[in-house]
Amino acid sequence: MEVEIISVGNELILGQIVNTNVAYLADQLRQIDLVAHYQTTVDDEPERIIAAVRTAQKRAQLVFVCGGLGPTDDDQTMPSVAKALGKELVLDEDHWATIQANFERRHVTMTPENIRQAYYLADGIALANPVGLALGTMVTTGKVTTVVLPGPPSEFKAMVKQSLLPELKKQFRVTNSIITRNLHFVGQPESLLMDEITSTLGNSPVVATSYVQPAEIQVRLKVSGMEATVAKQTLDQAEARIIAREKQYYFGTGDGLNLAGEVVRLLRAKGYRITAAESLTGGLFQSTLCSVSGASNVFNGGFVTYAAGAKEKLVGVPATTIQKYGVVSAETATAMAEGARQAMDADLGVSFTGVAGPDALEGHPAGTVFVAIAQKNYPTKAWQLKLTGLLGRQTIRNQSVAQVLLALYHRLQAEN
Amino acid sequence: MEVEIISVGNELILGQIVNTNVAYLADQLRQIDLVAHYQTTVDDEPERIIAAVRTAQKRAQLVFVCGGLGPTDDDQTMPSVAKALGKELVLDEDHWATIQANFERRHVTMTPENIRQAYYLADGIALANPVGLALGTMVTTGKVTTVVLPGPPSEFKAMVKQSLLPELKKQFRVTNSIITRNLHFVGQPESLLMDEITSTLGNSPVVATSYVQPAEIQVRLKVSGMEATVAKQTLDQAEARIIAREKQYYFGTGDGLNLAGEVVRLLRAKGYRITAAESLTGGLFQSTLCSVSGASNVFNGGFVTYAAGAKEKLVGVPATTIQKYGVVSAETATAMAEGARQAMDADLGVSFTGVAGPDALEGHPAGTVFVAIAQKNYPTKAWQLKLTGLLGRQTIRNQSVAQVLLALYHRLQAEN
Repeated sequence: MEVEIISVGNELILGQIVNTNVAYLADQLRQIDLVAHYQTTVDDEPERIIAAVRTAQKRAQLVFVCGGLGPTDDDQTMPSVAKALGKELVLDEDHWATIQANFERRHVTMTPENIRQAYYLADGIALANPVGLALGTMVTTGKVTTVVLPGPPSEFKAMVKQSLLPELKKQFRVTNSIITRNLHFVGQPESLLMDEITSTLGNSPVVATSYVQPAEIQVRLKVSGMEATVAKQTLDQAEARIIAREKQYYFGTGDGLNLAGEVVRLLRAKGYRITAAESLTGGLFQSTLCSVSGASNVFNGGFVTYAAGAKEKLVGVPATTIQKYGVVSAETATAMAEGARQAMDADLGVSFTGVAGPDALEGHPAGTVFVAIAQKNYPTKAWQLKLTGLLGRQTIRNQSVAQVLLALYHRLQAEN
Repeated sequence: MEVEIISVGNELILGQIVNTNVAYLADQLRQIDLVAHYQTTVDDEPERIIAAVRTAQKRAQLVFVCGGLGPTDDDQTMPSVAKALGKELVLDEDHWATIQANFERRHVTMTPENIRQAYYLADGIALANPVGLALGTMVTTGKVTTVVLPGPPSEFKAMVKQSLLPELKKQFRVTNSIITRNLHFVGQPESLLMDEITSTLGNSPVVATSYVQPAEIQVRLKVSGMEATVAKQTLDQAEARIIAREKQYYFGTGDGLNLAGEVVRLLRAKGYRITAAESLTGGLFQSTLCSVSGASNVFNGGFVTYAAGAKEKLVGVPATTIQKYGVVSAETATAMAEGARQAMDADLGVSFTGVAGPDALEGHPAGTVFVAIAQKNYPTKAWQLKLTGLLGRQTIRNQSVAQVLLALYHRLQAEN
C-alpha cells in the first residue's frame, strides 16, 4: 500500500518551524509496517492544498493531511480536503457543545469561527482530539482513505496515538506478526554503531534501524512474518549478540527509556544519594538528573565550581593540587568528586573539569575533559574522556554528562 | 520565480530524523525574498529521486536537492540528478586531492568509494563544503537552476551560508531593497505576541514574521521595494512602536542574539559577578549561563539546593524560614538568593524554588515557582512566576530560567 503525508502550513513553507509532525507520524506508521514514500508540504492556500490532495489520491491508498485545522481564516485544510474529495462537511453536535463548554469554563469569549473546529468530512468518522479543540477526520472514497489531522504537535501526537492508530489497526487489519524491541546506546557515533550492529546481525532476519536523540541512540530491532515464539527467540538472540559486542555503550532495552532516568532508577533501588561538583558542564549534570521526575529521592543538591577559587572554597580542592596539576587534571577531578561527596554526605560524588572551548585553558585544547566518580568505601576513579574540540562547546558539555551517566549506569548495574 | 526543495533520505521517509535542513534553507531563502512553495521528500531510491527532480523541472525555476552525497551505496543523489538532467559527472581534481589529504592526515584508510564525493555536474559549478568532504553543485539547464547539497546538517548549513547564498545573490541579482531586522522576545505566548505586533503595525508596510526557539521568540521585521533611507526610517519607527508595547518581553535587536548571551554581556560590561541557588531548576540556570562562551568572566560558581536540608546547609536558609513559610515561598527564595550571593561574595545572587511537577509539593500545584534576585546594596526582590502545571515539568523549568534571565536583563539595562 502506498502512503502519502501532506503537511500544510505557511510557517513550514517559510521555514519558521521545523516539521516534527511528519517524522513522528512516519515513525509511528513504520511500527505498523507502513512507509510513506510520498511526503509533500504546501502552504495554506486552498488551491495548493486541493492540488496536493488530488495528486495524492492518484498515487497513494492512504493519505494524511496534517495541519490547518485552527479557527482562523488561515486554516483552510478541512474545507479544501472536502472540495478535493467532493465531500460535504458535517457538524459534530457533541463536539461543538464540548468546545462551547470549554470556552465557558475558561471564561474566554468564543469567536463565531470556533464552530469550524467541530466539522468533519461526511461519510467519514470524526477522530477525537484528546488535548485540543479541532476534530480530525478519517474518510474512505473509492480505494483511498484520507485522514485529516491538526497541526500543533501536542494535539497531533495525542490524536495519532490515541485516536488514529487504533483505527488504522482496525481498518487495515495490520498484521501482528511484526515484533519490535528498542535498545538504547550512548557514547558511540551512530554510523559506527550501526555498522557494527549490521555486521553482528549478518544474515539474520532481524532488521535494525537507528533513531538519534541528542547524545543518545535508540536502535529498533524488528522481525516480521514469524510465529510469535520463534520471533521472540530470534530477537532474544540478536539482542544478546548486539549487547555482547556493544556492552560499553548499551544502557537498556525498552520503550521511553533515557539514561538519566535509568541512573535515577538504579540509585533509588540501592537507596543511594548522589551529588556533583561541575566545572565546564556548569550544572548540566545536576539539571539532567533533576529532569527526571522523582530525582529528589536520590539527589539533595550539589555544586557548580566554575572558577578555581570555587573549587577550593565549595568542595575543598587543595590549592596545592591545583597549583601542581592544574584545574584540568585527573587529580583535581578526584578532589572535586571526593570533596562534593563529603560536603553533601552522599554515597556518590561525581565531577567534571575541562575545556569546553572555544579557547584553550592551561595549554589544553578544547575537548580535554577529566571526570571522576567518588563512592563511599571505594577508591575514587578519575579518567579523561575521549572528546575533540571539533565537537563544539555544547556537544562537549552534553557528551561529558552522557558519558558520566553511562559510567554510573555500568557501575550501579555491576553492583547487582 | 517558483522554488522547489527536494529532501532525499531513507531516514527522513522512515521518520528516524527530523528534517531541520528544509526549515533552515526555506528560512535563508526567505531572507532574499524567495519562497519554496514546493517541498517534497523522497527516499534514496534512484528512480524516486529522478522522478522528483523531473517533476520539479516542470514547475519550478530554482530546484534544491538535499542529502545523499555520502560515499556509500545508499548515496545516489548526484548520479540520479545527473541522469534526470541528462548531464555527465565531472571529477574535481583539486577536491579529490583534498579528500585524499584529509584521510592521510587522520590516518584513516580511504575506501575506493570516497572518490564519488569529488564529482559534480558537468557545465555547473562546484559548491565548496567548508566542513565536510562532499562537493555541492549548481547547474543551469534551460530555464531551471538545480542545486545539489549534502545532508548532514552541519555541512548543509555551512555550504548554504558560505557557498550557496553568495552565488544565489550573484546569479539572481537579488534586490537589495529588502531590509530586515530581528527583534527578540521571551515570556509571552507566540500567538498573543504576534497578534499584538500585527495590531501595532496596523497598515504599515512592515511585515512581521515570527520564529520560535525553545523559550524565546524571534520576530523578523521586513520592508521591501523602498529607498534605503526611507526603509531604515520605516523600520526604526515600527521597531520603536513594537518595543514600547512589548517592553516587558523584549530583550534585544540583532542577529544571533540569545538571552543568556545578552545577560552575560551586560554583566561583563558592569564588571559584575553572579551566582545562584537552584531548587526545581536543578542547575539549569547556571548551565545556561555557562553555555555562553566567556561566562567565566561573570560566574565563579554556585549551588544546587534541591532538598530543604541543602538550602539550609549550602546557602544558610534559616530552618525557621522553611518551617514558617515552606520551601515554596517568596521568603525562602529571598533567603536562598541572599545566602548564595554572600557565600560566593558575588554582586548578584538569584534563586529558584517551586514545583516542577508532576506531583504537588507542600500543597502547591505544579507550576508554583518563586524566584528572587539579591543584589549588593539593593533590597532583594522576590516574586512568583505566572506558570501553570499544564506546561509540564521541562517547560516549567525552562520558563523559570528564561523569566529570571529576562528580569536580570531589564535590571542591568535600567542601571545604564
